[in-house]
Amino acid sequence: MRTHAITMLGTGFIGDFYATTLHRLRSHDRIRVAYARNEDRGRAFAERWGIPEATTDMEAAIRHPETDVVVVALPNHLHEAAVKAVAAAGKAILCTKPLGRNADEARRMLAAVEEAGVFAGYLEDLAYTPKTLKAVASVQAGSLGEITWVRSREAHPGPHSAWFWDGRLTGGGAIIDLGCHCIEIIRSFVGKGNRPIEVMCHTDTLVHPIDDEDNAVALIRFESGAIGQFEVSWTFRGGMDLRDEVAGTEGTIWLNHFLRTGFEMFTAGGSGGYVAEKAETAAGWLFPVGDEVVELGYVDMFDDMFEAIDGGRVARETFYDGYVVNAVMDAAYRSARSGAWTPVELHEWRGGTTPRIASTPEVHEGKVVIKREVLPDGRHKLVLKDPATGDFSDRVVGDA
Amino acid sequence: MRTHAITMLGTGFIGDFYATTLHRLRSHDRIRVAYARNEDRGRAFAERWGIPEATTDMEAAIRHPETDVVVVALPNHLHEAAVKAVAAAGKAILCTKPLGRNADEARRMLAAVEEAGVFAGYLEDLAYTPKTLKAVASVQAGSLGEITWVRSREAHPGPHSAWFWDGRLTGGGAIIDLGCHCIEIIRSFVGKGNRPIEVMCHTDTLVHPIDDEDNAVALIRFESGAIGQFEVSWTFRGGMDLRDEVAGTEGTIWLNHFLRTGFEMFTAGGSGGYVAEKAETAAGWLFPVGDEVVELGYVDMFDDMFEAIDGGRVARETFYDGYVVNAVMDAAYRSARSGAWTPVELHEWRGGTTPRIASTPEVHEGKVVIKREVLPDGRHKLVLKDPATGDFSDRVVGDA
Amino acid sequence: MRTHAITMLGTGFIGDFYATTLHRLRSHDRIRVAYARNEDRGRAFAERWGIPEATTDMEAAIRHPETDVVVVALPNHLHEAAVKAVAAAGKAILCTKPLGRNADEARRMLAAVEEAGVFAGYLEDLAYTPKTLKAVASVQAGSLGEITWVRSREAHPGPHSAWFWDGRLTGGGAIIDLGCHCIEIIRSFVGKGNRPIEVMCHTDTLVHPIDDEDNAVALIRFESGAIGQFEVSWTFRGGMDLRDEVAGTEGTIWLNHFLRTGFEMFTAGGSGGYVAEKAETAAGWLFPVGDEVVELGYVDMFDDMFEAIDGGRVARETFYDGYVVNAVMDAAYRSARSGAWTPVELHEWRGGTTPRIASTPEVHEGKVVIKREVLPDGRHKLVLKDPATGDFSDRVVGDA
Amino acid sequence: MRTHAITMLGTGFIGDFYATTLHRLRSHDRIRVAYARNEDRGRAFAERWGIPEATTDMEAAIRHPETDVVVVALPNHLHEAAVKAVAAAGKAILCTKPLGRNADEARRMLAAVEEAGVFAGYLEDLAYTPKTLKAVASVQAGSLGEITWVRSREAHPGPHSAWFWDGRLTGGGAIIDLGCHCIEIIRSFVGKGNRPIEVMCHTDTLVHPIDDEDNAVALIRFESGAIGQFEVSWTFRGGMDLRDEVAGTEGTIWLNHFLRTGFEMFTAGGSGGYVAEKAETAAGWLFPVGDEVVELGYVDMFDDMFEAIDGGRVARETFYDGYVVNAVMDAAYRSARSGAWTPVELHEWRGGTTPRIASTPEVHEGKVVIKREVLPDGRHKLVLKDPATGDFSDRVVGDA
Repeated sequence: MRTHAITMLGTGFIGDFYATTLHRLRSHDRIRVAYARNEDRGRAFAERWGIPEATTDMEAAIRHPETDVVVVALPNHLHEAAVKAVAAAGKAILCTKPLGRNADEARRMLAAVEEAGVFAGYLEDLAYTPKTLKAVASVQAGSLGEITWVRSREAHPGPHSAWFWDGRLTGGGAIIDLGCHCIEIIRSFVGKGNRPIEVMCHTDTLVHPIDDEDNAVALIRFESGAIGQFEVSWTFRGGMDLRDEVAGTEGTIWLNHFLRTGFEMFTAGGSGGYVAEKAETAAGWLFPVGDEVVELGYVDMFDDMFEAIDGGRVARETFYDGYVVNAVMDAAYRSARSGAWTPVELHEWRGGTTPRIASTPEVHEGKVVIKREVLPDGRHKLVLKDPATGDFSDRVVGDA
Repeated sequence: MRTHAITMLGTGFIGDFYATTLHRLRSHDRIRVAYARNEDRGRAFAERWGIPEATTDMEAAIRHPETDVVVVALPNHLHEAAVKAVAAAGKAILCTKPLGRNADEARRMLAAVEEAGVFAGYLEDLAYTPKTLKAVASVQAGSLGEITWVRSREAHPGPHSAWFWDGRLTGGGAIIDLGCHCIEIIRSFVGKGNRPIEVMCHTDTLVHPIDDEDNAVALIRFESGAIGQFEVSWTFRGGMDLRDEVAGTEGTIWLNHFLRTGFEMFTAGGSGGYVAEKAETAAGWLFPVGDEVVELGYVDMFDDMFEAIDGGRVARETFYDGYVVNAVMDAAYRSARSGAWTPVELHEWRGGTTPRIASTPEVHEGKVVIKREVLPDGRHKLVLKDPATGDFSDRVVGDA
Repeated sequence: MRTHAITMLGTGFIGDFYATTLHRLRSHDRIRVAYARNEDRGRAFAERWGIPEATTDMEAAIRHPETDVVVVALPNHLHEAAVKAVAAAGKAILCTKPLGRNADEARRMLAAVEEAGVFAGYLEDLAYTPKTLKAVASVQAGSLGEITWVRSREAHPGPHSAWFWDGRLTGGGAIIDLGCHCIEIIRSFVGKGNRPIEVMCHTDTLVHPIDDEDNAVALIRFESGAIGQFEVSWTFRGGMDLRDEVAGTEGTIWLNHFLRTGFEMFTAGGSGGYVAEKAETAAGWLFPVGDEVVELGYVDMFDDMFEAIDGGRVARETFYDGYVVNAVMDAAYRSARSGAWTPVELHEWRGGTTPRIASTPEVHEGKVVIKREVLPDGRHKLVLKDPATGDFSDRVVGDA
Repeated sequence: MRTHAITMLGTGFIGDFYATTLHRLRSHDRIRVAYARNEDRGRAFAERWGIPEATTDMEAAIRHPETDVVVVALPNHLHEAAVKAVAAAGKAILCTKPLGRNADEARRMLAAVEEAGVFAGYLEDLAYTPKTLKAVASVQAGSLGEITWVRSREAHPGPHSAWFWDGRLTGGGAIIDLGCHCIEIIRSFVGKGNRPIEVMCHTDTLVHPIDDEDNAVALIRFESGAIGQFEVSWTFRGGMDLRDEVAGTEGTIWLNHFLRTGFEMFTAGGSGGYVAEKAETAAGWLFPVGDEVVELGYVDMFDDMFEAIDGGRVARETFYDGYVVNAVMDAAYRSARSGAWTPVELHEWRGGTTPRIASTPEVHEGKVVIKREVLPDGRHKLVLKDPATGDFSDRVVGDA
C-alpha cells in the first residue's frame, strides 16, 4: 500500500472536514503543507491538524517537493487557477464541489487535467454517503426496476462563510452551493450514462437581502424519460434537511441523511456543545447524526480517490462529472430567466444513449391490462382497455 | 340539533367511504335513498349500509320527498348534470372532488348553485385531515412566519375503478385524480386569499398503457411569492404516499398521513385481511393507519358540512374553491403542453390581494446583516454585506 | 337512536377531555348537570360547555330527574362513594380510570353495580385508541401468531393537578396514574381471557420530593407464558411518551401514540399556543398529534359505551376489567416491597384458561429443526439438534 | 504510525465481520495468519481475505513469528484456553464478546492477561457505534442531567451458527449471546464507575425447542439508583431490533441502530441480494443500514484498540469490563431461577463509589415545589406540598 503526502489548498470550513477525514480515518495519508490566503488562518489550521508547514504562497504549496496529491478546498472563483497550476505541476488533483462557477470554467479545468494527464477527482461527498452507495447498488441490481423519478433535497438556513453569499465569487446562490450535490445524487440514481436533456427551474430570493437566489426548485428531464427534481434552500428552518427519494417501476427508496437517522435527543439545555452541522438550537428535541464525516460521505469519498490513484483507475466522481453538473446548473439559471424548459448544453457527451422507459403491456382476451390488483380472496381484479374503442372496464379473474 | 336525510348519488369506492363516515360517526344523519346506474350495485349498497331505498332514477333520487341533502359521489363527467338537477330541486349539495373536469364545467356548476341559492360544499377530504387542520391553524397563528414553499405529494399504484383511467370521463390522468387534493392543501397553507398566478407543469406517461399522464410535477407561483409544488403519480410502489411539507421564514411542518404514522407491523403472513387503502402487500413490514376515515379527513369534513348547513354559513371548502382548483389544473395541463409558465385564468378572484413576502434587513454598523449565527461560546457571528461595494464579510460580536 | 342526558361528576382536567368528546363528537348526547366540589369551578365548567346546571350537591346531581347516565370523573378516593350512590339511583355508570385505589375498593364497586343491575363501563381510553383497536384486531386475526411479549410505556414529566401527587387520595404514584393504562393495553393484546398469574415490579422515587414512586417497571406473567412489561415515569423529559410494542411468534407491532405520529414541526417560536398534552416546549422541534381526543381513544371509548347501553350489551371495558387492573397493581406494589415475583390475587377469575404457547418442532432426518433460514441462492440452511446427544449442527438443503 | 500483523483465531460469522473491517478500513493492519478448526473453512477464509496462511494448529498461529496481535473470534468455550495461550506468548489480545461463559472463566482470563502484562481489549462492538459514542459523550457532558433509566434491546429471530444454540458451549441462551451487548451499553450510559448492585431477571423458552432461554428481560440496579433494563430475544420477527433509550433528569435519548435509520426501501422483489444482518425478507418494505460495519461499531472499535496499543493506554473496553458483564449475566441467571433480586458478585470493584441521584427541592413560601409548569400566558403553575401536613395544593404565580 502506497502512502500519500498531501498539499491542502484552503483552510476554511470544508478544509476542516477534509482534514478530519484524512488524518483520523486514513492516518497513513497526511497533509504535508497547507496553503491559506491569510497567514494566521494557515498557521492555526496547521497547528490544529499537526501539519508541518503552512504557507501563503500557493505555487510553492503546489510544487512542494514531498507531496504527490493536491486538494483544492478553495472558494469557487479560485478553482480554475489552482487546478491549472496543479496540472502544470503534474500532480494528482482532488477538487471540491462545484468544479467551476459555470460550465465554461469547468470545461477548461477538464481540458487542463486531461491534457496534463494527471489524476483528477471531483470531491462530491454526498454521492458517497454509505446510504447512497448502498442505495445506488440496489438500483443498479434492479431492485427498483426502471427509475422514473428522483427527488434530491438540500436545505438549511444559509452558509457559514461570507464568500458563499457573493455570487461574483461563487457563480450563483443556493443552486451553486447545494444544487450541485443534488444533481450528482440524481445522476447516480438515474444512471450517469443517462443524458440530461433539458431543465426547468424556478428561483427566487425570498428572505435574505442578497442578489442571488436563496430558494430554487428544478426539474431535469433525462433521455430515458426519468425526471430529476432538486430543491435547494438557504431559508429552511430546523437544521439541515438532506433527503433523497427514488421511485422506480418496481420499488421506492427514501433516504434521510441528517435530521432523522435513528438518533433522537431531548435536552432541557445547559450543556452546550456542538450538535451537528447547521443545527439551529442546543435544547429541545435534537437530531444528531452518529459520525458526521462518515454519514456525509467524506470517508468513502477519500477511500475511493486514493484507491483510484493507487489502482490506476478513474474515481467514481471525475472532473467530467463536475463539468456535467455545471452544465446542468447553467441550464437551470437560463431556465429561471426564461421561464421555460431549457436544453443542457454539453460540448461532448461521453455517456452513450439510454432507451426510453418502456414495458410491453399485458394483454387479456384482446384487451390491454392497465392494472392488476390482488383481492383479499386471492382473485385478481383487472382494469382493461379496449384498444379499438378506448373504453375501460373492470374484470375479476382467478389467480392466474 | 337538526338531523338530515340524505340522497346519495353514486355507490362506488368513494360512496362506501362516505357511507361509512355518515352512518358510523354521525349516526343522526342517515342516507335515505341511493342512486346507482346499475340496479344490482345500488341494491347491494343499500343492503350494506341499511338504506331504505335504492333506485336507478337519478331525478327521483334527487327529488325524494324526505331528503334535504344530496351527496354527489359520481364519476367526474356526471357532476355537472347532477349538480344542476340538485340546484333545480333546491336542496343542499355536497359534491366530491374534483368539482369539474375543467374550469368551465366548474364555473357553470358554481353559477348554478349560486343562482339557485342552495348550500354547496366541496368534498375535499384531505383539506380536513386532523393533522392538516391543526397544522393550518399553527400556520395561521404565525408559528412558521411567512410561508415560502409548500410541497404536497400524493402517489399510489393507480386507481381501483376502470372509469378513473378514461380521460374522456375524468378530464385527465393523475393530476385530475390526485392533483386536486394537493392544490387545495397547498392553498390552505399559503392562504386561500393568496392568488395563484401561474403554473409550470411537467407530465409524462411512463408505465401504464394509457393516453393520460400517470406522473406529474408542478409548481404554482402565488401572489406572495410562495411556491406550491405538487407531485402526483399513479406508478408509486409501496402503498399510498400522502405527505405534505411546509416551509416558512420561521419554521417547518412535515406531515405524513399514511405510510408512517406511528403504526408499524411486521407479519410473516397468513392472516390476510384489509391493511389500508392502496396497500400493496399483506406480509412483511406494513404501515396501517389507525382509523382511516378519520385520518383521511372524512369525519371532520362532514362535520363541517353539516354544521355549516345548520349554522347558515359557508363550508370551509366551497364550490368556489373547487372552481379555483380546476382553474389551476387547467393551467397545469396547458403548461405541460407548452413547456413554460402559464397563467391561471380565473373569471373572478374573490380573495383580495396578498403582499410579497418581505422583511426589513437588520443593519450593523452601516452594513446589511445577511445571517446571524450563535456560536457555542454564546457570541454571534454575523455575515455582512457592504451596500456600497456589494462585498461580503464575517464579523463576530457579543451576544447582542 | 336514543339520546342520553348525562350527569358529570367532576370538572377537572379529565372532565374537560370528556366534555370535549361528548359535546363535539356525539352531539346528540349532552351533559345536563355538572357536579363540582367547588362552586366557582362548577359554574365555569358549565359555562365552558353550555351545560344548563352546575351544583355542589353530588347526590342531587346523580338523582337529577332528566339524566340517565352518570360519568364519574372525580379523584380516585371519591370513586367508591360516587359509584355506590349512582348504583343506588339505578342509572348507568361510566367511571374513569383507575377504578379504585386498590382491588378491595374496586371489588366493592363491582359488587355494587352488579347487585344493582346497572350498566357499568370502565373509561380506559387508551384501550380504545384507533391504533390499538386496529392492532388488537390484527392480533386476534392471527397476524402475529401467538403473543409472547407486550411492552406498554407511558411516561411524562408528572401530572398537572395537585391531588394526583397525594398517594393517600390516589392509592399510589406513577403506577396508579399510568400503570393502569398499560396493564389494560397489555391485557388487550395477550387476550383478556389470559390470566395474569404473578408480577415482578421495581419502583423508586428518583426526582420529585414525594413519598410515592415516580418511576416503575414491572413484568406480568400470564398463564400462556406471555410477558407483559409496563414502564411508567413521572420524570420523563420531552413530552408524553406513549408507546406499545407487541411481539408474537409470527410478527411484531410497534405503536407510537404521541411523539412520533407523522406530524413534525419546527418553529423558531413566538406564536405560543397549546401544542399537546404534557408538551414541554413551544419552540424548536415539536410533535403535535392530529386530533388529541381521537388519538387518545376518547371518541371510540364513548361510542362503545353508548352503543353498549343502547344495545343492551356490556362494554369492551367493564368494571370487572377495572378490578383486574387494580389487582395487578396491588401485586406490583407488593412485589416492589418484597423484591420478588408476587401472585395476582383475584377473588374470582372470569376468563377461563389459556394454554401455554406451544409449537410442534419440525423434524429433519431424525433431528429437531431449531431454525430455518433462506439463503440468497434459494437453498435453506437448517440448524439441527440431535435429540439423543443434545449436539447441534448446520445443514444446507434444497428449498423444500 | 505502527502497523500490525494479526493472527486471527476463528473464521466464522464474526471472523468475516472483523476481517471486513480490518482489511477494508484499516488497510495498514493485515491479517497474517488465520486459524480454523476445519481445514477447508480456514483455507476459504484465507482466500476470501487475501491472507497468506491458514492453519489448524492454534498454538502455531498464536506464536507466528510475524504477528504481534491476536484476535480471538472463537466460540465461547474456547476463549479461556486461547486467551491463556496468547498471554503466554506475550502478544496483544483482542477477544470477542462475551469474554467468558461465566464470571469465573472471565476472571481467570483477566488474571492471565494482567499477570502476563499484555494488552487485552474486549471486542464489544455495540459500545462503539458512532451513535453510542456521541450519545455517551452528550450524557457525560451533562445534556441529560443524571441518568435514571437505560433500556437496551437486542432481538432477532436467532443466531446463524449451530454452536450458538448449545448452552454447553456458550454458557446460556439469548442472554449470553445478546445480553452482554446490552449490559455494556447500559454501563456506558449510567457510568462505568456506577456499581451494578443487583439484578432481577425473567427468562423463558417460548418458541425454539432448546433448553436455554430464547427470551429474557432483566433489571439491573446501580449504586446511583439508576435502573438498566435489557430485553433480549431470539424470537423477534421483522429483522434485527437494536434500540437503546436513555432517560435522565434533564433529557432523553433514543437510538435506533438498525431497522429505522433513515434508509427505507420498498421493492416488488426480484433482485435478491443481501439486505442486512438478520433481515427476514428480500421484498416489501426493507430497512437497510448504510455501512453495516460502521453502524455496528466495528470500525470505531478496532480504531480504539489499535490506537490504545500504539499509545500505550488501555482500550475503552477492557477485559475487566468483560468480567463485570459476565458477573451481571451470572446474577441474571441466578435471579431467573430464584425469582428475586440477586446481588452481582464481583471479587473486586475498580469503579469507586457513585452517590445516589439527588436534587435539593425548591421551596416556595414554606412549601416544597413538586412541579413547575409554564402556562401559555407565561405564568407558572406550581404543585406544592406542605411538609407539615403532607397535603398538596396548586398555585399559579408570575414568571419568577
